[in-house]
Amino acid sequence: MVMSEAEKKLTAYHEAGHAVVSFNLLNTDPVQKVTIIPRGRAGGYVMSLPEDRMAYSREQFEDKIAFAFGGRAAEEIFFGRITTGAASDLQQATRIARDMIMQYGMSQSLGLRTFGQQQGSIFLGRDMGYGRDYGEEAATLIDEEVNRILDENYLRAKTIIEEHKDQLIELAQTLMRVETLDRRDFEEVMNRKETESEPLPESVG
Amino acid sequence: MVMSEAEKKLTAYHEAGHAVVSFNLLNTDPVQKVTIIPRGRAGGYVMSLPEDRMAYSREQFEDKIAFAFGGRAAEEIFFGRITTGAASDLQQATRIARDMIMQYGMSQSLGLRTFGQQQGSIFLGRDMGYGRDYGEEAATLIDEEVNRILDENYLRAKTIIEEHKDQLIELAQTLMRVETLDRRDFEEVMNRKETESEPLPESVG
Amino acid sequence: MVMSEAEKKLTAYHEAGHAVVSFNLLNTDPVQKVTIIPRGRAGGYVMSLPEDRMAYSREQFEDKIAFAFGGRAAEEIFFGRITTGAASDLQQATRIARDMIMQYGMSQSLGLRTFGQQQGSIFLGRDMGYGRDYGEEAATLIDEEVNRILDENYLRAKTIIEEHKDQLIELAQTLMRVETLDRRDFEEVMNRKETESEPLPESVG
Amino acid sequence: MVMSEAEKKLTAYHEAGHAVVSFNLLNTDPVQKVTIIPRGRAGGYVMSLPEDRMAYSREQFEDKIAFAFGGRAAEEIFFGRITTGAASDLQQATRIARDMIMQYGMSQSLGLRTFGQQQGSIFLGRDMGYGRDYGEEAATLIDEEVNRILDENYLRAKTIIEEHKDQLIELAQTLMRVETLDRRDFEEVMNRKETESEPLPESVG
Amino acid sequence: MVMSEAEKKLTAYHEAGHAVVSFNLLNTDPVQKVTIIPRGRAGGYVMSLPEDRMAYSREQFEDKIAFAFGGRAAEEIFFGRITTGAASDLQQATRIARDMIMQYGMSQSLGLRTFGQQQGSIFLGRDMGYGRDYGEEAATLIDEEVNRILDENYLRAKTIIEEHKDQLIELAQTLMRVETLDRRDFEEVMNRKETESEPLPESVG
Amino acid sequence: MVMSEAEKKLTAYHEAGHAVVSFNLLNTDPVQKVTIIPRGRAGGYVMSLPEDRMAYSREQFEDKIAFAFGGRAAEEIFFGRITTGAASDLQQATRIARDMIMQYGMSQSLGLRTFGQQQGSIFLGRDMGYGRDYGEEAATLIDEEVNRILDENYLRAKTIIEEHKDQLIELAQTLMRVETLDRRDFEEVMNRKETESEPLPESVG
Repeated sequence: MVMSEAEKKLTAYHEAGHAVVSFNLLNTDPVQKVTIIPRGRAGGYVMSLPEDRMAYSREQFEDKIAFAFGGRAAEEIFFGRITTGAASDLQQATRIARDMIMQYGMSQSLGLRTFGQQQGSIFLGRDMGYGRDYGEEAATLIDEEVNRILDENYLRAKTIIEEHKDQLIELAQTLMRVETLDRRDFEEVMNRKETESEPLPESVG
Repeated sequence: MVMSEAEKKLTAYHEAGHAVVSFNLLNTDPVQKVTIIPRGRAGGYVMSLPEDRMAYSREQFEDKIAFAFGGRAAEEIFFGRITTGAASDLQQATRIARDMIMQYGMSQSLGLRTFGQQQGSIFLGRDMGYGRDYGEEAATLIDEEVNRILDENYLRAKTIIEEHKDQLIELAQTLMRVETLDRRDFEEVMNRKETESEPLPESVG
Repeated sequence: MVMSEAEKKLTAYHEAGHAVVSFNLLNTDPVQKVTIIPRGRAGGYVMSLPEDRMAYSREQFEDKIAFAFGGRAAEEIFFGRITTGAASDLQQATRIARDMIMQYGMSQSLGLRTFGQQQGSIFLGRDMGYGRDYGEEAATLIDEEVNRILDENYLRAKTIIEEHKDQLIELAQTLMRVETLDRRDFEEVMNRKETESEPLPESVG
Repeated sequence: MVMSEAEKKLTAYHEAGHAVVSFNLLNTDPVQKVTIIPRGRAGGYVMSLPEDRMAYSREQFEDKIAFAFGGRAAEEIFFGRITTGAASDLQQATRIARDMIMQYGMSQSLGLRTFGQQQGSIFLGRDMGYGRDYGEEAATLIDEEVNRILDENYLRAKTIIEEHKDQLIELAQTLMRVETLDRRDFEEVMNRKETESEPLPESVG
Repeated sequence: MVMSEAEKKLTAYHEAGHAVVSFNLLNTDPVQKVTIIPRGRAGGYVMSLPEDRMAYSREQFEDKIAFAFGGRAAEEIFFGRITTGAASDLQQATRIARDMIMQYGMSQSLGLRTFGQQQGSIFLGRDMGYGRDYGEEAATLIDEEVNRILDENYLRAKTIIEEHKDQLIELAQTLMRVETLDRRDFEEVMNRKETESEPLPESVG
Repeated sequence: MVMSEAEKKLTAYHEAGHAVVSFNLLNTDPVQKVTIIPRGRAGGYVMSLPEDRMAYSREQFEDKIAFAFGGRAAEEIFFGRITTGAASDLQQATRIARDMIMQYGMSQSLGLRTFGQQQGSIFLGRDMGYGRDYGEEAATLIDEEVNRILDENYLRAKTIIEEHKDQLIELAQTLMRVETLDRRDFEEVMNRKETESEPLPESVG
């Protein structure tokens, strides 16, 4: 598939959105590569090397959600429109939020218990949902809590991008020129613009 | 199956409805062919060549829905009656509206999350629905939002047809005479009547 | 199975009910044959030759429902009792009403959308119902609308029969004598009595 | 299994209950045989030869229900206690009431429609119930109507037995002596006591 | 598995609870054997020889439930604590109460009907529950009625034990000494203490 | 997987949390081994040798839940953060609470009955949940009761840790040094610090 200039630009800002949000969060793995060369159905991607880690904290999950929302937030801020390009990001963000609540007891309002039968791991993402072992009231509370977590972290992603617009534009334009950046080049672009940026937003809780 | 004159006329206006709505929307692919020669169970069809595209916006989906409703809207306006001829259009419009809400986070009121397990792609249209991973309240909100999106875009389709009645009649009558129009001939008929028409309606959102 | 005289009479009035309703509706296919000679589990039947048709209108569906109810309406009017003989008619009427609402968007209150996954065609009548893709509120609205459509058209069937009692009695008695009537003979019986009858009832909508 | 005297008496009154209710209803098939000789898991049985019939009326179904309840009603009246011996009668009565409402449109409050997918025939009694094609409100109405039909006809069975106590006692005692009665002997016992009995109760509806 | 002294004592009082309740009820089968020698997962058991019986009454079912609760009631009264040792008793009591309501029409408030599709027999205990053929309101009523029946009969079991504490202690201590009692020895222990006991409680209804 | 120092510390405090809670509860099996050497996906573990036991009491189950929560409570108290490291503990605690209510009748508010069809044993943990044999109201009550039991016992775990902070710190630091402690060494560390600690909290009920 050959990308049009418009698509290339959209992709560059989308991927730059992920990368800039990741760079400015405390609990994300370092970005190893940013590219706008399509792979499969994705227009481009940001690759992070996950550190070898035994456990994830609530803050790490929330940063993962904000990171996943980075692409869409950039599309909204720079183009004022929403596309299906962020569909798999949305799916992943929803799954993390559900697992925080249903598998890891990380929601104050739902409390310290698990809900349903988890099938497969969190990043594999199978969740058949039959055998719901909770009532309708709990189902509604889970929906509300999923929405709250996602809303808060979409807002965090947007705030980070608003506060680092220069970094993002610089990165997106570099990507449109060179298409792929490795970790060193990426961080150089980031640091070139960092001095002019605002302080980091606090993690929500 | 041999079409009666009445059926031929109904088909011509139905297909002309699709084509005129498509022609007067901003985000649709150009019409390549309009025909009232039956194919399979369809009385006729409008063929668009979808541009090679990585992502769809909300506006594009809404235009797709309005386009799908064009045939039925024409039937209602010109014949004052509703038939099963628009059944697959209705099915497609419903599916797009559901996917906008449930897969692409394009509904303000349902928010940025996915609902259920998508199975198969949007235009293939399988959606088994078991394993509903949301509560009854969300189900009701989804129904309301599906209705809102569909209602608004049916209205858009009707408004476009009302404002381009001359174009549509001209096209339908040409189709009854020549049965099939390619892109060049179609656009010629459209442009012949365009000068007399109203400005385009805005996309809803 | 040998029919008793009582059963023969019940069958004759039941089939005459279907036939007279059909004859006095605007949107039904012409009756080709009326018989009270049993076939399979049916005591008799009315055969219509469906015209080769691409699409059905709401009016045609409503006439189909009224036609299906003709047998039961005749039983109620002439014998004052309800039997299982109309069970498959009832099943067919329910299915048509459900499809009008759920597949063809022909209900004002449910709006222009489809509900559930249709499986098989309308006259084949498989509808498993699993994977309900709508909420409980919509389910209740569908039930109410099914009831409304069925009630209105049962009333239509009864009204037609009340207004053409002479035709029906004449037909039923002819059937008890000759058992089977082809289209020409059937229409002769109808026309013999038509002059004395009331004007046609309007289609409901 | 050898019956105790107490069981023999219970069985005799139970079967006599069925038989006396059947004898005093208008729409039941004639009793061919009454016996208290066990067969399979049943302690005894009443055999009726169903007339070769194409259709059942609401009255016939209601009489079938009252007939099914005859055994239990007799147990309650003569022994003041309820046993599991009437379990299959209860199952059959429930199934008939459900089919009246859900398959045959014989309930005023649920109206002229079918509910669910019937599987198997009414006297075979399979009804899996998956694929419920109606809402929760309809489910509640169906439950209420099933209860109403069953209550009314249990009352009818009890009333008949109260009014023909002599017949029933005579029959039960004859059964305890001779164990099996054929149609002629059964009707002789019935007629011997009939003159002293009350007039028949009306069919409910 | 070797029982500790504490477990042996708990088992002795648990089994004595079953046996004393059984002995003091009107509608139970005679106890053939009481033992605290473990068998499979059970710490001990009370064996009754069920009389060859065609039908069960409500009173017999209620006595079965009280009998099943005897072990747990004894644990509560003598040790003031609840253990999992009574789990299969609890399961059986629940099943009987559900069957009384759902299969045998023995509940005033649910009325004379069956609910759901019974699968397997009452003492085999399979009940898959799919294909629920009743509404949510009925489900709630069934839950309430199950609770009422179980509560009443647990109270009956406790009352019997309170009133026959001497019998139970005598039996439990004998069991701890000799481990197994046959019918004759069991009844001898019972009768030795009977004279000092209160009159029997009435069956609830 | 090589643990970082931070992970090693987190693991040490997590496992020490389990062990200290276990040591200070009345109804837990003695700790045989505490280790922070990873096994499978677990960072470390506390091994107890379950005594050969026929039945569990409510107190024993509640102590099991508090024990399962010990690791998470320690993480919260010493690090102020929640991680996925406690996910399997959470799953086990939920399962025990559900079984207490649904299989063992140990909840006052749900009463003496079983709910649903248990499949597999409590520590094997399969519970498919289909065939829910209770109504929505009961489902809500079960959810509330699960939450109450879990909340109370998480609080108990936290209280024990707060009152034995010195023991826990001593144990965690020993573990970071020697990685594994057997029963004798573990109890020595415990007893060394016991004299300075508060009295045991009461079991909740």
